[in-house]
Amino acid sequence: MPLESELISWLEKNLPTGERMKIALGDDAAVIAASRADSVVTTDMLTDGVDFLLEQVDPQLVGRKALGVNLSDLAAMAAQPVAAFVSLVLPRQGTSKLSALELAIELYRGMIPFAAKYGMVIAGGDTNTWDGPLAISVTAIGETTPRGPLTRSGAKIGDQVLVTGSLGGSILGKHLELEPRISEALLLNERFVLHAGIDISDGLAIDAARLAQASGCGIVLDPTLIPIADAACRLSERDGRSPLEHALSDGEDFELLLAVPTDAAREILSAQPLAIPITRIGEVIAEPGLWQLISGKRQPLEPKGYEHQAEA
Amino acid sequence: MPLESELISWLEKNLPTGERMKIALGDDAAVIAASRADSVVTTDMLTDGVDFLLEQVDPQLVGRKALGVNLSDLAAMAAQPVAAFVSLVLPRQGTSKLSALELAIELYRGMIPFAAKYGMVIAGGDTNTWDGPLAISVTAIGETTPRGPLTRSGAKIGDQVLVTGSLGGSILGKHLELEPRISEALLLNERFVLHAGIDISDGLAIDAARLAQASGCGIVLDPTLIPIADAACRLSERDGRSPLEHALSDGEDFELLLAVPTDAAREILSAQPLAIPITRIGEVIAEPGLWQLISGKRQPLEPKGYEHQAEA
Repeated sequence: MPLESELISWLEKNLPTGERMKIALGDDAAVIAASRADSVVTTDMLTDGVDFLLEQVDPQLVGRKALGVNLSDLAAMAAQPVAAFVSLVLPRQGTSKLSALELAIELYRGMIPFAAKYGMVIAGGDTNTWDGPLAISVTAIGETTPRGPLTRSGAKIGDQVLVTGSLGGSILGKHLELEPRISEALLLNERFVLHAGIDISDGLAIDAARLAQASGCGIVLDPTLIPIADAACRLSERDGRSPLEHALSDGEDFELLLAVPTDAAREILSAQPLAIPITRIGEVIAEPGLWQLISGKRQPLEPKGYEHQAEA
Repeated sequence: MPLESELISWLEKNLPTGERMKIALGDDAAVIAASRADSVVTTDMLTDGVDFLLEQVDPQLVGRKALGVNLSDLAAMAAQPVAAFVSLVLPRQGTSKLSALELAIELYRGMIPFAAKYGMVIAGGDTNTWDGPLAISVTAIGETTPRGPLTRSGAKIGDQVLVTGSLGGSILGKHLELEPRISEALLLNERFVLHAGIDISDGLAIDAARLAQASGCGIVLDPTLIPIADAACRLSERDGRSPLEHALSDGEDFELLLAVPTDAAREILSAQPLAIPITRIGEVIAEPGLWQLISGKRQPLEPKGYEHQAEA
C-alpha cells in the first residue's frame, strides 16, 4: 500500500479528535467549529541538519520539537492552542533504522501526546517522500483569550523586562525537549497586566531587540540579573565562551520575555505564580536599541543570535 | 543582512494586507478576526524533483502551484479563502540563476497576485535555508459559507456525478498553471443542491473511488462521457497510452468532481452556469467501489492515479 494511505490508516486509529473538530482526517480539508475568539496562526518548518540531526536523535523528539516551536509562538501571543497541521517530506529510504513509514509514525508518536498536553488536536496534514532529507512543517492554530493577544509591540517606557526559566546552552538538550510556556503565558495574561511578549527562539539579545523595535523603544538589560541555565555553564566549560554569553545569544530557549508595567511586575515577582522562576532582567527605555548596564552605565549590546544565513 | 530579515523587509513592502488580519507580519503569530463561520484548513507541501523541476520552470509558477493546490482543496470544500501561511526551505546557494533570497522573492511574486485573485492574504510564514532542494509548505485557511462545507461523504445512491472542465495531460502545463475552482464551487454550492465534492488532484479514477468510499457507496463512470483535455490527446501521441487512460489516471487536473441529486444535476447541466463546461460522467450506486460502463455493462474500474510511494 502506498505510504500516505498506510499512514492515514495509522492516524485514523491513533489520532485523538477534539470537540471543536467538525471534520478532521479523510476530507480535502479540516473544519474547525467557529468560536467568538480571534484565530492565532503560526507556522514553522524544521529541517534535518539544521534543527536536528535525524541519525543522532530519537525521531519522537524531532516530532515533539516541530510541534513545540509552534506552541512556543502561540505562548508568546498568550493564545490557547486549538489544532495543528503537519506537512512531512520524508527521505524515501527512511533512516538507517526506520522505513519512511516507520519514521513518519515515530514523528507522530512524539507529537500526539505533546499536543494533547496543551489541549490541541492534530487535525490534518500532508505526507510526501523524496530523495532529500527530512523536513517537517507545522502550522498551529490557536485562539485568543478574552484578554486578547499579547503582542511584541505593546511595551511602554518604564516597563520592567521579565523572563521565565533560565537561559543558554539549549543545544545540550532543551532545544529538543522544550517546554512551550503555554500555561505560564495564559496564567500571567489572565492574572496580571502584561504589555508585550515574545518567545526567546533565536537568543535573548536578538529577541529583546525585536521586542524593543516592534514597540518603538529600547531595552536595557542588567547582565547580573540574567538567570543562567546550568547547561550554559556546562557548555562554557567546553567552548570557553562565558555562561553569560551563552545566555544572551544561544537560540532555542523557548522562554517568555515580557514587558510588564512596574506595579504588575512587582506583583508577579513577589507572587512567583509559576512552577518555574520568573526574573526581572531589565527595563524598557525611550532610547531605541538594545543596551546593557555595565557598572551602572548604559552601553550598547549587540543583538547576537541565530538567523538563517544564505550565500550571496 | 541575514536572508530571513531581508525577505521580511521585502514582504513588508509587497504583501497586501486584508481587513480580517488584526496582526500579520512582524509578531510571533498572525491574528485573524473572528467570524461566525467555521474555519476550513488544509496544508500541502510541494518539493523540487517531485512536484516541479526548479531548474526548468519559472519559480513564480512554482509559488503559484504551491498556493493553488491548497486553494483547490478549499474549492473542494466550497470554502471562501481567507489567509495562507507559507513555509519555505531554500537551497542555500539558490539556483543556477537566482540567489536564495531572489528565489524566495520570485516564489512570493507568483503567490501574491494569485492569492489576491481569490480574496486571500498571505499572512505569515517561515523561511529557512539548507543544503537540500527547495520545499514549500502552504497552509490555507478558509471559511464555510452559510451553505456549510461540501464534504466527500455526502453522496447518495442515485446522485449524478459531474465534473468541471476537461481531464488528462496536466503534466504538459496545467499542473503548474492550475486554476483552482474556487468561484465555481462557491457559485454551484450557493445556487444548487450539492451532495458531495472532491478536487481531482491524484486522478479522476482514484479521486472518484475516494469520494465513493467516504460516502459508503459506489460510483459507475461512463467512459464515453468523460471530457478529455487536448493535452491528454497530445500526450497520447507521445506515449501511446490512450487519451481516455490519461483522463482517468493523470493527476493534477484540479477540477471538481461532484455528486449531485438528479434534479439539481439536470438544472446545472442545462444552465451551464460556469465559464467552463460542467459534464455528467456517471452515477452513484449502492454497490461499493469504482465501476465503468462498457457496452452498457458494469465492469470494475481500477482506481489508478498518483500516490506517494516509499521503499519498504
